[in-house]
Amino acid sequence: MNTEQIAKFVAETSYDQIPREALSRAKWCILDCLGVAIAGLKESAGTIITEYVKDLGGKPEATVIASGFRTSSPQAALVNGTLAHALDYDDSHPNFQHATAVTLPAVLALAEREGVSGRAILEAYVLGCEVGSKIGITMGTALGELGWHPCGILGSIASAVASSKLLNLNKTQIRTALGIAASQAAGLSRNIGTDVKPFHSGIGAKNGVVAAMLAVRNFKADESIFEGHHSFPKVFLGKEYDLAKSNRQLGAPFSIVSQGIGRIKPYPTGGPSHKSVTAILELIQKHRIHAEEVAEVECQVSSYLVQHFGHYSRPKTASQARFSMHYAMAAALIDGALTLKQFTDEKVTTPEVQDLMSKVKLVKLDSEVKEGQTHSDPPQIVTVKLENGKAYSHQVPFAKGEPQNPMSLEEIIDKFRDCAGTVLSPLDIEQTVDLVLNVETLPDITELMGFMCKTGPLN
Amino acid sequence: MNTEQIAKFVAETSYDQIPREALSRAKWCILDCLGVAIAGLKESAGTIITEYVKDLGGKPEATVIASGFRTSSPQAALVNGTLAHALDYDDSHPNFQHATAVTLPAVLALAEREGVSGRAILEAYVLGCEVGSKIGITMGTALGELGWHPCGILGSIASAVASSKLLNLNKTQIRTALGIAASQAAGLSRNIGTDVKPFHSGIGAKNGVVAAMLAVRNFKADESIFEGHHSFPKVFLGKEYDLAKSNRQLGAPFSIVSQGIGRIKPYPTGGPSHKSVTAILELIQKHRIHAEEVAEVECQVSSYLVQHFGHYSRPKTASQARFSMHYAMAAALIDGALTLKQFTDEKVTTPEVQDLMSKVKLVKLDSEVKEGQTHSDPPQIVTVKLENGKAYSHQVPFAKGEPQNPMSLEEIIDKFRDCAGTVLSPLDIEQTVDLVLNVETLPDITELMGFMCKTGPLN
Repeated sequence: MNTEQIAKFVAETSYDQIPREALSRAKWCILDCLGVAIAGLKESAGTIITEYVKDLGGKPEATVIASGFRTSSPQAALVNGTLAHALDYDDSHPNFQHATAVTLPAVLALAEREGVSGRAILEAYVLGCEVGSKIGITMGTALGELGWHPCGILGSIASAVASSKLLNLNKTQIRTALGIAASQAAGLSRNIGTDVKPFHSGIGAKNGVVAAMLAVRNFKADESIFEGHHSFPKVFLGKEYDLAKSNRQLGAPFSIVSQGIGRIKPYPTGGPSHKSVTAILELIQKHRIHAEEVAEVECQVSSYLVQHFGHYSRPKTASQARFSMHYAMAAALIDGALTLKQFTDEKVTTPEVQDLMSKVKLVKLDSEVKEGQTHSDPPQIVTVKLENGKAYSHQVPFAKGEPQNPMSLEEIIDKFRDCAGTVLSPLDIEQTVDLVLNVETLPDITELMGFMCKTGPLN
Repeated sequence: MNTEQIAKFVAETSYDQIPREALSRAKWCILDCLGVAIAGLKESAGTIITEYVKDLGGKPEATVIASGFRTSSPQAALVNGTLAHALDYDDSHPNFQHATAVTLPAVLALAEREGVSGRAILEAYVLGCEVGSKIGITMGTALGELGWHPCGILGSIASAVASSKLLNLNKTQIRTALGIAASQAAGLSRNIGTDVKPFHSGIGAKNGVVAAMLAVRNFKADESIFEGHHSFPKVFLGKEYDLAKSNRQLGAPFSIVSQGIGRIKPYPTGGPSHKSVTAILELIQKHRIHAEEVAEVECQVSSYLVQHFGHYSRPKTASQARFSMHYAMAAALIDGALTLKQFTDEKVTTPEVQDLMSKVKLVKLDSEVKEGQTHSDPPQIVTVKLENGKAYSHQVPFAKGEPQNPMSLEEIIDKFRDCAGTVLSPLDIEQTVDLVLNVETLPDITELMGFMCKTGPLN
């Protein structure tokens, strides 16, 4: 897989060649992303970036989600990409990470400007995810280990592909857009846990739009950025690296089909915590456990989980709670569920949940990530010990939401209702669902973006 | 030198603490940068980025140089940063590289918005250059060797410092701005030789503006991005790296004084070629050499020069000619000078210069860059052999423009006249020179930016 092959694949693959299953799953991801982006406006990253971009003005050619205004396509992609990842509730693909949050905002920002059809949107989105995913298989995990946040790095490439397809670039222009995107790719993992994490998604989305818009104007860039001396993969990974290592071919099959949909998240917490969350929810339901009878919760997890989801053992904010195994366990025990409504600063600071968190313990399970695995893969064992001496232990082979245990369409729609309900009326919600699930029939997306342009809690 | 110390230095250093000599040199750099940015509009990178940003609209709060319109501060910084580096004729500081081209556009973009004084501009500009330069001493050369273009990487940090100072951020906000800037830092050296090279300067300038504007709004980022696990230096350099390695302290003395001004370029070609250019111009003048009597020109240079300035042995465009030793030698011999006027596609393709280039030979001199040196440092020997059998050989210890052989203020003003003359009238030029050289007396920069807002060749 080199730059030429990527450009050829993108230029020569059309809607009709994309499997029906891939298109169907794409629509689910798009619906889910729109929902979490709407809900993301309430987060500090979402609020601040929206107000910042609104203040800067810009040609009103693309809708900023949930805020009732339009701006230029690059700026809309920047905001919407940030909104989509603000809650960390958006889908995550193995290795590539937040595929939809970086790709979809780029596609929508240009689709509105260009007035293209729903089919063109699906086509561009699927191709962006496909290239991002296949490069992610080679580079993704290594990037994270080196301190890069793949979201803004691979995301820039994926959004450049999607933007290029949407603008109908030829092969040379696509290669140029990839060169421009590669030189904008950015994001340090040290900023994970701050507002800059979702901003990386906005950066990735915007970078691709800018790259394609400049390539159209004949802005010149290196046309073989993925191979040779000081190539994109080599510079970011700091060593020889060969994209040909990826043993899967572009589109054969499409990642969105072969790996399932990645993970559409049922819980608004960091993905690697989901095995323990699924396990405790199953325990609660099976044994009708009530929070007040719990003496201790022990989560046996990998050292990665101990480090990254044990750091906030007593979170004080919703932002911290999203990456806290202690909060996830306690909130699940108190409410019997783990939904968006539990992730407010008020809920996080109630004495009841703060007290229960002191009973949660993380224990390192000697089972680490193997070659080619993600941090979601190693087993997690949850044990709930009751005051009466009883103890229940449980683990699940696949967390709810993983490709092998996916959310159903009905569950995805329910999640959308929950998220979009922060801005849209029940009628708006059902009409939006209908439009997205039939997006391939739309001659343009004016009506759909009309719903996205409703005003949310800031307005 | 860590994040806290940088923030403290920036927050606590005011105009009155900056040496008079530093302020004086700052004004020379600013004048020079404005000139090359005006002239940069004619380059493809400058033209395309200007038209692109104009099309996107935006709140008219900051002037886009030489195009008669204003846009939002981040977008103005993006265009002006690109314009300033489009000709590769802007100043270059050792290790940090294009200090003014990334720092000044950020300062100007915010200064107009905020209505601050000329003193505040000098203060912010000098502090941005100082932090960029001191970090550059530690990281700069290594970045280039790894395939990064320091311009967009260290440039993002320098412009964040300058923007933070201009917005009067407190220490915590400056640390946040540095964290935001670090996660936007980008630029691959593979794109050198394309329109993306100057775009890196635009990216750097814009990143700092965005970082400071978001830090003001309380957008959260990592507050110690320069040290610890996965710090900015470590991730970019791929290994342990200690900013404390820099044995010079911030402001003690200021780099702009101790290293001289860096290099204000007398010739519109890549800096490392300047020793040979200086040598041949001195030979031409001393021996009254005419192009038609020349049999051969031999340039003995480092392997870096052979590779990077020998690649375009027969350039066809002005862009290529800027990085061609063959063109520099031939054009200097034909015109007895090397100025902006010689760098047009027409001039480059005349039979006379194309013919003369075939007589220029690059020979590797066994003298490479030593630890702490730049590619401008190793000796270069130029030998001109005449048809009559005579031969003259010459080398200069320092190229014209280097701190040890600097351009005089009068020469800098002459260069400004040459560059700015592409847009400004002779009267405008003299008034602009007067404003810049007395910028510390200005209550705001409305009048100065009025001259920058004149319309150039695109309009």
